[in-house]
Amino acid sequence: MQFASRLDKVETSAIRELFKLLGKPGIISFAGGFPDSAMFDVEGLRAASQAALDNNPGAALQYGATEGFDPLRAELATFMQSKGVGGVAAQDLIVTTGSQQALDLLGKTMVNPGDKVIVEGPTFLATIQCFRLYGAEVISAPIDADGVRVDRLEQLIVEHRPRFVYLIPTFGNPSGALLSLERRRRVLELAARHEVLVIEDDPYGDLYFGATPPPSLLALSADVPGSRAWLAYCGSLSKVLSPGLRIGWLVAPEALLARATMCKQFSDAHTSTFAQATAAHYLQAGRMPATLAQVREVYAARAQAMGEALRRELGDAIEFTQPQGGLFFWARLTGAGGRVADAGEFARRAIEQGVAFVPGAPFFATEPDTASLRLSFATADEPKIAEGVARLGRALG
Amino acid sequence: MQFASRLDKVETSAIRELFKLLGKPGIISFAGGFPDSAMFDVEGLRAASQAALDNNPGAALQYGATEGFDPLRAELATFMQSKGVGGVAAQDLIVTTGSQQALDLLGKTMVNPGDKVIVEGPTFLATIQCFRLYGAEVISAPIDADGVRVDRLEQLIVEHRPRFVYLIPTFGNPSGALLSLERRRRVLELAARHEVLVIEDDPYGDLYFGATPPPSLLALSADVPGSRAWLAYCGSLSKVLSPGLRIGWLVAPEALLARATMCKQFSDAHTSTFAQATAAHYLQAGRMPATLAQVREVYAARAQAMGEALRRELGDAIEFTQPQGGLFFWARLTGAGGRVADAGEFARRAIEQGVAFVPGAPFFATEPDTASLRLSFATADEPKIAEGVARLGRALG
Repeated sequence: MQFASRLDKVETSAIRELFKLLGKPGIISFAGGFPDSAMFDVEGLRAASQAALDNNPGAALQYGATEGFDPLRAELATFMQSKGVGGVAAQDLIVTTGSQQALDLLGKTMVNPGDKVIVEGPTFLATIQCFRLYGAEVISAPIDADGVRVDRLEQLIVEHRPRFVYLIPTFGNPSGALLSLERRRRVLELAARHEVLVIEDDPYGDLYFGATPPPSLLALSADVPGSRAWLAYCGSLSKVLSPGLRIGWLVAPEALLARATMCKQFSDAHTSTFAQATAAHYLQAGRMPATLAQVREVYAARAQAMGEALRRELGDAIEFTQPQGGLFFWARLTGAGGRVADAGEFARRAIEQGVAFVPGAPFFATEPDTASLRLSFATADEPKIAEGVARLGRALG
Repeated sequence: MQFASRLDKVETSAIRELFKLLGKPGIISFAGGFPDSAMFDVEGLRAASQAALDNNPGAALQYGATEGFDPLRAELATFMQSKGVGGVAAQDLIVTTGSQQALDLLGKTMVNPGDKVIVEGPTFLATIQCFRLYGAEVISAPIDADGVRVDRLEQLIVEHRPRFVYLIPTFGNPSGALLSLERRRRVLELAARHEVLVIEDDPYGDLYFGATPPPSLLALSADVPGSRAWLAYCGSLSKVLSPGLRIGWLVAPEALLARATMCKQFSDAHTSTFAQATAAHYLQAGRMPATLAQVREVYAARAQAMGEALRRELGDAIEFTQPQGGLFFWARLTGAGGRVADAGEFARRAIEQGVAFVPGAPFFATEPDTASLRLSFATADEPKIAEGVARLGRALG
């Protein structure tokens, strides 16, 4: 059997191979990209799912509009308003099957084989592969601790005339970086000036530990003339409420949203109405602020514990910026004192010591940094973090 | 903003325009393609969703494997075994976000722009558009009351060397036709002889009114040497349990299933685990046989009522085969006695009389039959069916 040639563009994930080793008993994992199941608001979701079946079971269990379940669209618009986003009504967004589907619909809608797209280097692995499946040539723009370097981004836009630029401005995966307010404005100005679509992926924006981060590009776009017309925004309930509901959403200019909706119609008809009605009732019940406060508090303590442990156990063999939110540390091996500087080799030694993380190289579309690595602090409690980082120290030698 | 050129292949749906008229008060609709909400087993699904949250809330609300939630995969394999399908274990299927996604993954995996695929004429509208989005040239094979004409199908396979053949062998949408046992064997022999993939879409197979229909192609393939290697099967809980769960599944040869799984990973990561866990508990609770018995009984009575009313009210102006299962009557206007023979014109007059149906022409990828129409008997009860068909009689003039 022959397969479509577009599949040639996607490599088997090196990370998948690593994950097969995670079944080893007693292993402490910093490798995941998911929230801690122990923090799911099970009682709140139970009540919401029951309310969905009590109130209007026909609607919750029947086919629904491709655009999404209207009460959920309204709740999501209100949720964004509570975060400073103006001018986005229920009809300006569609519900997607996780924000992964929003990315897929943007790829399906926008990308012809051979088209170029720009992402951050490093960025979310499944984004690179999603766009490559549609034949995109994926180009990396460099980042630093303040997010994407806008000067380099502009040069790349001018040079490559990409179909779009994909950014995770707030606590990016894997970088954990926070794009500064100044750079956010400049990104929006670039979008309007060069008439290039910017995709803001924002699954982590609510997971801040101290001060509120700068406004999303979507919120800021109200202040930058002409930029809203060149901005798409992907939201998600996966990291803050439950990934298993598979509820994401897409805000985009009207013509793009209409095309993405048509593509979604033939992708999965619509997102589970039962999951959508459950999410709508959950948001309506007003439980989200307390849920957010709790996950912020727990992750902040874990991030603090991991940062202290890394400094204590790995010293000058590793460098990193302490994350101000999200789920991840992004770090580099320095090779100081002749210790291991290759993150792949370090990952193999770490597994032998009973601790797992993900090497950073696969997160780069081009020019991988083989000294980089990603550590999640989300799913291990503080004693496990201390023990796991101690094992990393032993693996370092 | 420019969109991907593949979008040019898909026309705006004529049916969408018709559906906008359905809001008219008092209208009786035979236009839908969905089951009756009044028959959803709300109590069973309520209990199943609660059990999912009681038993293992972490698993029901967390990310899951792209292949699907293992307990559901096992239940679906058992469900298929109960219908005579041998040799399909849990690991031989993946769960999809409705069977629409199974079709999308097959398109994404198999179709390069310009490739040919063969479907029945008429067939499910969203299938034609789904495959066209990947650049397929869609060719129609003619059908009669016994399903696809296998002699013509073989000629078309030899002539066009398609990437695959897509069939709804059992109570097809819109045709309602039932592929005979003899033709089923011949289709499987064709697949093996010409080494062409056959996709069996089977959302309606459980909705039979009298005798059990012939075995699915998947069940029969055990008896036709070499055919299983050229067969993909799409199952769905949408028509028999609840469309809003968005639970479908795909059985396919190992290499194809692996590629489809990779495409799914970047399409939506996985299907809602909450919906999957709910479906798994529902199947495990053993409620499905009673649910199936009830929907069969209700739809059988409605199909009977509609057939009698059509003969009574429209006489020789319409011809059709009484369906033995599914949700639809497929009919043709004869123009007898100088009455209207164009189904589009008839649909407009019918709306004026307060009754809606779908003209058949859009269901043909090529050579539309403008005298054909589709009537669903699923969502109107028997008095409404009688009144609706009386209105059709008045619309006919």
